[in-house]
Amino acid sequence: MDDVIPFWMKFSPDNENGGFFSCLDRKGKVFDTDKFTWLQGREVWMFSHLYNVCEKRDEWLAMAKLGADFLEKFGHDKEGNFYFSLTREGKPLVHPYNIFSDCFAVMAFGELFKATGESRYGELALKTFGNILKRANNPKGKWSKIYPGTRPLKGFSMPMILSNLAMVIEHLIEPEVVEEITANCIHEVMEVFYSTEHGLILENVTPDGQFSDTFEGRLLNPGHAIEAMWFMLDLARRNNDKALAEKATGIALHTLRHGWDNEFGGIFYFMDVKAHPVQQLEWDQKLWWVHMETLITLAKGYRMTGRAECMEWFDKIDAYTWNHFPDPEFGEWFGYLNRRGEVLLPLKGGKWKGCFHVPRGLLQVWQTLEGESSGSNFWR
Amino acid sequence: MDDVIPFWMKFSPDNENGGFFSCLDRKGKVFDTDKFTWLQGREVWMFSHLYNVCEKRDEWLAMAKLGADFLEKFGHDKEGNFYFSLTREGKPLVHPYNIFSDCFAVMAFGELFKATGESRYGELALKTFGNILKRANNPKGKWSKIYPGTRPLKGFSMPMILSNLAMVIEHLIEPEVVEEITANCIHEVMEVFYSTEHGLILENVTPDGQFSDTFEGRLLNPGHAIEAMWFMLDLARRNNDKALAEKATGIALHTLRHGWDNEFGGIFYFMDVKAHPVQQLEWDQKLWWVHMETLITLAKGYRMTGRAECMEWFDKIDAYTWNHFPDPEFGEWFGYLNRRGEVLLPLKGGKWKGCFHVPRGLLQVWQTLEGESSGSNFWR
Repeated sequence: MDDVIPFWMKFSPDNENGGFFSCLDRKGKVFDTDKFTWLQGREVWMFSHLYNVCEKRDEWLAMAKLGADFLEKFGHDKEGNFYFSLTREGKPLVHPYNIFSDCFAVMAFGELFKATGESRYGELALKTFGNILKRANNPKGKWSKIYPGTRPLKGFSMPMILSNLAMVIEHLIEPEVVEEITANCIHEVMEVFYSTEHGLILENVTPDGQFSDTFEGRLLNPGHAIEAMWFMLDLARRNNDKALAEKATGIALHTLRHGWDNEFGGIFYFMDVKAHPVQQLEWDQKLWWVHMETLITLAKGYRMTGRAECMEWFDKIDAYTWNHFPDPEFGEWFGYLNRRGEVLLPLKGGKWKGCFHVPRGLLQVWQTLEGESSGSNFWR
Repeated sequence: MDDVIPFWMKFSPDNENGGFFSCLDRKGKVFDTDKFTWLQGREVWMFSHLYNVCEKRDEWLAMAKLGADFLEKFGHDKEGNFYFSLTREGKPLVHPYNIFSDCFAVMAFGELFKATGESRYGELALKTFGNILKRANNPKGKWSKIYPGTRPLKGFSMPMILSNLAMVIEHLIEPEVVEEITANCIHEVMEVFYSTEHGLILENVTPDGQFSDTFEGRLLNPGHAIEAMWFMLDLARRNNDKALAEKATGIALHTLRHGWDNEFGGIFYFMDVKAHPVQQLEWDQKLWWVHMETLITLAKGYRMTGRAECMEWFDKIDAYTWNHFPDPEFGEWFGYLNRRGEVLLPLKGGKWKGCFHVPRGLLQVWQTLEGESSGSNFWR
């Protein structure tokens, strides 16, 4: 409330064209004006959410609307597919090849509808959600470079994001649809992408859920898997499913043991399940969102299962995170550290880092741990 | 001759399916069997070239043919566009979105034609070269994610590779075509992409050659720019153009001063011309090809201009390279080091590293420095 949110309030609004700047240097100065749709949607969601769950501050609602109106006007093509990026004025730069642009637009408009009750935001969220469901089996569509048929694979991100999305816009869709989507996501995440052989979640599997011994099939993204576990914990809480909470917490802890860098601390970005070299040159870097999302999962896992290991790991990740990512001098957090935990890029925001993981994570951990000392029951 | 070439002779041939494995771990063991067209073409070129310029060894010709026949049979679609990657059996995995697959196929078949005189190799090289010229203005074609019209940019790699390609297949094309292409490439590289304002070569400029103050427009790839300078030096030698040799050497030296890491040594992979944060998380890594190509440029620059600074930098890069990249224990070179010069990935070959930059570079430096001590004239 005193550091992260004011940073984005001060430096990100584009009061001339609408929308947000996200490419901010260490001091918050805009170093590039391109607008990445992911980050527009995420910031709209964040300010709407703060308004909905923390305090009805007009300035937060105004921020949310500044981004939402820009996204509504310039963000999508005639079919309602969201472009990946835009110029500062809102002209499309990169085609809608990335379905997560649409996912974060749904979160944005769904949450802003909750804040304002304005039906057009709700309708846009619903329409975009419908688009996503239609595209879900082939998200990249005509922009996919994969030759069809030779080696079909499905990706973990789709069921992962849908499990969160369905809850974020639960107020907008039929209960049966929510049930169907979430049940399917839980199955995909916990049984299909979770490999009992490896005890880890794979980023890509064959259409029938088998391991593919290829670069894509061997890929692990520990932060991704651990983040998905708190989506599962949220569903477990909602469904009062203690077995799911136990399983999700166990997977998160195992992933953490596997992904932790014993030499320099921090969680690796990418790994190969057979310990072969990965294609991602950034594999050993320590990223802000990986550590923030892990804190959320551990806090929820602790409150829902009481496992001491969650608390121990929380303390360890918490110490690493606060020792490395925040920038006490100019505010907000660095995003990208090298393996040793040194700042790799001095930016506070860029193509992928915006007003999202840090404030969402701090808020989630706060909400989760609140009342913990009084022994209040976290389960419904 | 005793290390690098035997390594690829021993570990890369796929005697069952044809073609080459390129994903080789530290000891040479195949850790993934996917076949990347770039690296198939490059290895065919390399063994054909060794046969043509070093010694008529049957085993080298057999290696070249093993790759060429695989590429000829499985490498391209009906229109003759080369896929980006194939399974070990030759089934297409990734669409022909990357025109460099075609460029390296041209080099491969052109050089193998020179070795064998078999007309079908020459015809395939020519036909593919024609395809490249047709696609040159829009190389990614329908797989481009860039929304047309908003911010048109042209990339440095196209004139750079064409300048080299035209010389590699000079024996196959009309002299006037060679003249036209090379004259245009020299103009593009030395006047359009070279920014007099910055004294550096930019990776992307506007269609009319202006600086674009965007992520793409600000991008520098020092290794790329320095490599292009030896293509220019080859053209300078061919055209007896001493002014071009002076200018290319000067640009290479300036790029080197700019791209050298004063703290840990080595040349950075990516930079931003305005010193803003780049999007490439691997920006500070030290790559084998960057250093190898720089040695070629400095050797040629020294022999063609006599500038002492070339010799000084050659000694510095030579020491860095030999201290960091070769693996005396298991042969060949590591490809990817972190900023400190420590091995980041223990592979000897992968998606992008194959049998190309190391042997080509060693051969080029050898050929360039041969006769230097006797004071023989390097100019024609």
